[in-house]
Amino acid sequence: MEQDGDKTILETARDGGVSDPVRRAAEAEGVSAEALSEAVGAGQAVIPHNRHVRLERPMAVGRGLSTKVNANIGTSKDHPEPEPELEKLRVALDAGAHAVMDLSTGGPIREIRRAIREACPVPLGTVPVYQAAVETVEQRGRSICEMDVDDLFRVIEEQAQEGVDFMTVHAGLTLEGIERLARKERLMGVVSRGGSLVMEWMMYNRRENPLYERFDDLLAIAREHEVTLSLGDGLRPGCLHDATDGAQVHELIILGELTLRAWEAGVQVMIEGPGHMPMDQIAANMLLEKRLCHGAPFYVLGPLVTDIAPGYDHITSAIGGAIAAAAGADFLCYVTPAEHLKLPSLEDVKEGVIAARIAAHAADIAKGVPGALDQDRRMAEARHRLDWQTQIDLSLDPEKARLYRDEGGAYHGPTCTMCGDYCAIKTYKRAMRLKAGSGGA
Amino acid sequence: MEQDGDKTILETARDGGVSDPVRRAAEAEGVSAEALSEAVGAGQAVIPHNRHVRLERPMAVGRGLSTKVNANIGTSKDHPEPEPELEKLRVALDAGAHAVMDLSTGGPIREIRRAIREACPVPLGTVPVYQAAVETVEQRGRSICEMDVDDLFRVIEEQAQEGVDFMTVHAGLTLEGIERLARKERLMGVVSRGGSLVMEWMMYNRRENPLYERFDDLLAIAREHEVTLSLGDGLRPGCLHDATDGAQVHELIILGELTLRAWEAGVQVMIEGPGHMPMDQIAANMLLEKRLCHGAPFYVLGPLVTDIAPGYDHITSAIGGAIAAAAGADFLCYVTPAEHLKLPSLEDVKEGVIAARIAAHAADIAKGVPGALDQDRRMAEARHRLDWQTQIDLSLDPEKARLYRDEGGAYHGPTCTMCGDYCAIKTYKRAMRLKAGSGGA
Repeated sequence: MEQDGDKTILETARDGGVSDPVRRAAEAEGVSAEALSEAVGAGQAVIPHNRHVRLERPMAVGRGLSTKVNANIGTSKDHPEPEPELEKLRVALDAGAHAVMDLSTGGPIREIRRAIREACPVPLGTVPVYQAAVETVEQRGRSICEMDVDDLFRVIEEQAQEGVDFMTVHAGLTLEGIERLARKERLMGVVSRGGSLVMEWMMYNRRENPLYERFDDLLAIAREHEVTLSLGDGLRPGCLHDATDGAQVHELIILGELTLRAWEAGVQVMIEGPGHMPMDQIAANMLLEKRLCHGAPFYVLGPLVTDIAPGYDHITSAIGGAIAAAAGADFLCYVTPAEHLKLPSLEDVKEGVIAARIAAHAADIAKGVPGALDQDRRMAEARHRLDWQTQIDLSLDPEKARLYRDEGGAYHGPTCTMCGDYCAIKTYKRAMRLKAGSGGA
Repeated sequence: MEQDGDKTILETARDGGVSDPVRRAAEAEGVSAEALSEAVGAGQAVIPHNRHVRLERPMAVGRGLSTKVNANIGTSKDHPEPEPELEKLRVALDAGAHAVMDLSTGGPIREIRRAIREACPVPLGTVPVYQAAVETVEQRGRSICEMDVDDLFRVIEEQAQEGVDFMTVHAGLTLEGIERLARKERLMGVVSRGGSLVMEWMMYNRRENPLYERFDDLLAIAREHEVTLSLGDGLRPGCLHDATDGAQVHELIILGELTLRAWEAGVQVMIEGPGHMPMDQIAANMLLEKRLCHGAPFYVLGPLVTDIAPGYDHITSAIGGAIAAAAGADFLCYVTPAEHLKLPSLEDVKEGVIAARIAAHAADIAKGVPGALDQDRRMAEARHRLDWQTQIDLSLDPEKARLYRDEGGAYHGPTCTMCGDYCAIKTYKRAMRLKAGSGGA
């Protein structure tokens, strides 16, 4: 069954059908289309796939599926050039990102998004309030507080028409949530860029969040163009101290309510999650999301398990992301070494994707995703044979593995320069031959 | 009470006293000397501190203490020059390593060890069988199988006399364990370098492991010179497939028996652990060690949570190490990006130490080590103030944080080049001012 004009992916799945995006995503994943469609119909998996595009590499996220990785790219005011971001797209894809978000806030952002869409074979996500805010400020010379709500919805519709597959909307940030935020001291307040923009608008205008108030309008656009909503966590903790507080959990409750409304409207939903969080709180947060949001897929940024490692937040988030994914998170947003310090470079993008893929893969093994251990087994077999070419080919980053191997310099013997003749693998094999024979003494 | 000629650190602690190394390690840790001494007396903490040295930076490892990090350095046959290894020592210490092991197997290894000891303010560990094997092969032109047991014990005694603080001895690898190993197929067999050397000797000579058979001789040397024994895991798994099998657990049972004998002899002990291991097996392995080895501190290499990321094994082991330490591991041996590929460079050593420190710190927060969260709190406060100098000063690696911050190029405004004017922290502060006032509309 093809995706038709009447039904959304969710509705088709709920009615027992298999839409084209589901079928193709199932093929890419190596799972049965019927099983995937059942999970999509139950809201426990999503296929972010805009109606107006045909993705070369569709992606399924959710229950029973391998953990996916998203890479954020995009300009900023200080780096408004589109070309480096298109280059980052290529690097992210080469490194194995399953989806990409364009978070541009500098330069000609509409044109940048179109160029990225054109070049992007995987699901593309955005945060439409960025475009609305930037247009208000840069083009109209007004403050963010004067952003027109109709303009915001026009941007959402434009992006939906132009092929964006999933959109982050901070629809769960409400006046009530902001009151709750103010009742308990946070060290970092609000660290979500979109969340803070929406909050400033709300405080200036003394009005409820338009994304919450007009959620039905949002759903109508999402339904018409088949946009998956990624319900943003505007109140996510920005440091370990602020994790799992009333404001964060309150917003999650609202996101769960909005999830039910989206499903009712035939719109696919995933939930965004923290953030910065001590290791021992991660599993509970995964459970909370699955319960409060009725099994909707969880898309997490990090979690970063310490605040004190700027320059290495790809590692702090690989630790948190692995634990999160093993405990139920479905989709990891990468964090690069540049996080908290600057817009990432090409190299940062690559390192961020690889670190998140390591976390995702380690978690897939732990949560028993079928076949997850196969590549590890082949790697172990190649290591035992001292078969270096196969080891390099099986590496998550063959380029770096090859480079390191070659940096052994002139040495290209059967072992490596760590142990040389004292290679445990060689010694063990000799020992086993002696064991099988009669020893040597 | 000073460390005297009669009693060891363990015996003094058991008798209710506080030896000088315990007092100084407690000071360094910021804990009460009496509490630390009690843990040392119970075998649940160790202070690796040779009788013949006075360490500038003594270290306590174990119950209730922050998780410590060890860096392995040392030559190999292909890189026999001492100078780079002394440089690695400096880099490892600058990056915050709490202990260092000299694993040299190339060049004039006795002289290299002496030079490292001279330059090393922290506890120094070795694997004496390396020196015995290398001297047998390189100096006497014999095979490892012809290593003389008395020579091995002479090397152990020499190293003890010359100030080595802790020694890895693969005393738990027995003929029975090797039989058990052969009963179930492993993909990687034995990957411990020392373990494989001992095994080859045993298979050639058809004799029991001399480190096991003559464990009392080992204890006599360790007792006399105050060497902490690090009971090596010769049968640790070398890939995920081999984790937590009969051979591994059988060796751990023996290490638990040897622990009791060491304590009886007044010798401090820690236990070495895996290795390569799926995330979901780590916590159980920590519990097993604490139970089978009677609460002796656990010193783990990794665990690496996937086999397929050569070039990034500092990250795979940071994930595993964080989970392990949160579940009870006390001491993390770093793994560098060069693991499985080559002898590490200076940069690899630095990255390895930082990654392990991130894992250790994240775990300390999760397991509630007193004060572990303090630096994170100060970082969050500095971030909220957009106080960049303090953020850099509080970073685990201030040099890299400064470099990344400066790579923002000409831009040195109050925010960073990721968000620029759309910095969530700035926007949030404006929103809160609007909230406190009467809004702006």
